Amino acid sequence: MKIQQLKGARIRKQLSQGTNEQREAVISILNQVKEQGDTALFELTGKFDGAQLDDLKVTDVEIEKAYASLDVEVIDVIREAAANIKAYHKKQIQESWITTKKDGTVLGQKVTPLDSVGVYVPGGTAAYPSSVLMGTIPASVAGVERIAIATPPRADGSISASVLVAANESGVSEIYKIGGAQAVGAFTFGTESVAPVDKIVGPGNIYVALAKREVFGIVGIDMIAGPSEIMIYADETAKPAYLAADLLSQAEHDQMATSILVTTSIEVAEETSKEVIRQLESLPRKEIAEASIISNGVIYIANTEEEAINAINEVAPEHLEIVAHEPFELLGQIKHAGAIFLGKNSSEPVGDYFAGPNHVLPTSGTARFSSPLGVDDFIKKSSIISYGTDALYNDGRKISKLARLEGLEAHARAIDIRLEEE
Amino acid sequence: MKIQQLKGARIRKQLSQGTNEQREAVISILNQVKEQGDTALFELTGKFDGAQLDDLKVTDVEIEKAYASLDVEVIDVIREAAANIKAYHKKQIQESWITTKKDGTVLGQKVTPLDSVGVYVPGGTAAYPSSVLMGTIPASVAGVERIAIATPPRADGSISASVLVAANESGVSEIYKIGGAQAVGAFTFGTESVAPVDKIVGPGNIYVALAKREVFGIVGIDMIAGPSEIMIYADETAKPAYLAADLLSQAEHDQMATSILVTTSIEVAEETSKEVIRQLESLPRKEIAEASIISNGVIYIANTEEEAINAINEVAPEHLEIVAHEPFELLGQIKHAGAIFLGKNSSEPVGDYFAGPNHVLPTSGTARFSSPLGVDDFIKKSSIISYGTDALYNDGRKISKLARLEGLEAHARAIDIRLEEE
Repeated sequence: MKIQQLKGARIRKQLSQGTNEQREAVISILNQVKEQGDTALFELTGKFDGAQLDDLKVTDVEIEKAYASLDVEVIDVIREAAANIKAYHKKQIQESWITTKKDGTVLGQKVTPLDSVGVYVPGGTAAYPSSVLMGTIPASVAGVERIAIATPPRADGSISASVLVAANESGVSEIYKIGGAQAVGAFTFGTESVAPVDKIVGPGNIYVALAKREVFGIVGIDMIAGPSEIMIYADETAKPAYLAADLLSQAEHDQMATSILVTTSIEVAEETSKEVIRQLESLPRKEIAEASIISNGVIYIANTEEEAINAINEVAPEHLEIVAHEPFELLGQIKHAGAIFLGKNSSEPVGDYFAGPNHVLPTSGTARFSSPLGVDDFIKKSSIISYGTDALYNDGRKISKLARLEGLEAHARAIDIRLEEE
Repeated sequence: MKIQQLKGARIRKQLSQGTNEQREAVISILNQVKEQGDTALFELTGKFDGAQLDDLKVTDVEIEKAYASLDVEVIDVIREAAANIKAYHKKQIQESWITTKKDGTVLGQKVTPLDSVGVYVPGGTAAYPSSVLMGTIPASVAGVERIAIATPPRADGSISASVLVAANESGVSEIYKIGGAQAVGAFTFGTESVAPVDKIVGPGNIYVALAKREVFGIVGIDMIAGPSEIMIYADETAKPAYLAADLLSQAEHDQMATSILVTTSIEVAEETSKEVIRQLESLPRKEIAEASIISNGVIYIANTEEEAINAINEVAPEHLEIVAHEPFELLGQIKHAGAIFLGKNSSEPVGDYFAGPNHVLPTSGTARFSSPLGVDDFIKKSSIISYGTDALYNDGRKISKLARLEGLEAHARAIDIRLEEE
């Protein structure tokens, strides 16, 4: 794994906006779904997933079979992960509030869950039950009544048992065998089989990402996801073998994944580089991980801790590990990161699967302005304004003055007419 | 103003996605700004605003002159409105939190303000100092260090004095004379004069809206704004003259604005319709308001209160007024609205200018999934995960089991390697 000096390196990434061809393909798919409904979904699922379906919706029988096919221990672990994720997200619940004044005024903010959401779960050859839990549990904690999942089927028309069990454990009753931009189209416009939703969340490939951006405004979306990333800051106390394992766990996702280590220790840099090569050898997904490390893996040597922290804030990584002797002491300096893993035990997979915080995180530097998926994504707020009679009497002329300053006479008169008659 | 039965009416609106021509124009402007920087901004400002500028940034001298040109009373009212807006938004501040477990684990969420934001303020022939306050004060309350404004100049290259004073009162030091999609481009890509920002907020015309959607992902955006709307629910206790004044205050914005009254009282419906005609006569912006009422103004008669409430939740209006004998009693039934104005004193302009809640609100039904602009828009969260040694020992095998279930062996090994050495 290559080692270079941090100083002067260009490290900031930017989210891919897709090519014109990808964009046109997405617009065409969305239009097809909008116009032809289910017919389009069946056709596109045949074309992209190689599956000839009779029904888009997963049946209760399929879910029962999924349970029967899974190891009891696996089901228990899924349940325990679900419980942890639920407990963490419950802490994110926000309450409605009001504030009152003696002049009769009541101001406030009402928090309301969304009516319906669609959760996209990547699939096909791989299966991600953890993504089901991370996408649906915050929605359920927020109080969303209707939670639907879409995930691409395998060529035989089936969905992975673990995905079905995770969905059922999260209390989701609507599971659709639809992938890619066509899933986004179905959730946005609705079809004979799929009722439209108010918001679409969850990561997907570039087609899903572009489709979400395309429909944003008709429906809400969470964020636009790019390839996954890890950045590790390690001082001389870090164990190179752990660092290498964590870098590789990111690299095995796909070739586009990014694994960066920044360290103030030349020894840690060199040992980690060797460990990566050594551990890579026996990985089942060696080919992917190796390609990723070659394209997007770097070990930077920082002259100072400050230089390293600045680099972290420049990258705004999706996952950040801080492996230093006093990791919490650095927390106040970290401005931008999706999730911050502190200390030697906090390997990224701990957060990917089990600890409780969400693993759907802002990528490609978008942690500068975005947050992990959470309960916030499944509620919205309404302002509350009840103006007091005394307040209107005291402030009315000021309000109409501001309205007239903007040339909006009807606004001013809406106040004046009330003052005249008081 | 036309009166019709609510039952069976189609009332839901959808946000305009723009025409292909508008979209291509926006993409072309964004590319021009990205490639040519300031040169593009000067050229486009000449083309669209008719202004030949020497400098894009407002100078201190211009701000001093603005103060000198305004009535002291106006400056005081701007200051009082700013103080109210600040007080309300301070209530929205969210704190970082952690939760600890006996097994050594610390989980939490860190709240951090964005580094920099660009606030778009509509302008040109009109001037909206209130939009300056509403866009910038929540950012300042959130702790954003760099807040920049862009607003189109008048043909003589100047910016309205009230806008400059409002900006200065909000503590904003960067004000740019740039409008439309080119302002969005400047904030996204940066030019010689304008440093790029992390997020762009504020309403604008369809070109601004489409440009924001286009750059979403490179920068954050708040929402995509459509034409303004009001929906009023009134029972038989409401005063038709007030209702008419409030409907017209919305209608005077522009022809695309929507004004809807829903009432269970036929008398209120008929009287309000007459009042609208009567009050319309003497309005300076009569032509616009009349066109808006004719195109998008309706009075619906609901058979029951429940029917009316359902219609409100169907429309998810930007502004909702509830003028009924016990308005707070209906609050729990309102699921979707940007701002809810309760009672006879709570005319929409109270909230547009002065009460404190934000007037940048979700339009075109997007209140189903979006919130008013607020402090939330100017912060982001990072998950905190510090896993305890005991926790890793207890949970490690479960975590690697889940990783292997997803076929991610390197994830499993990142845990296993730590267990082996404990």
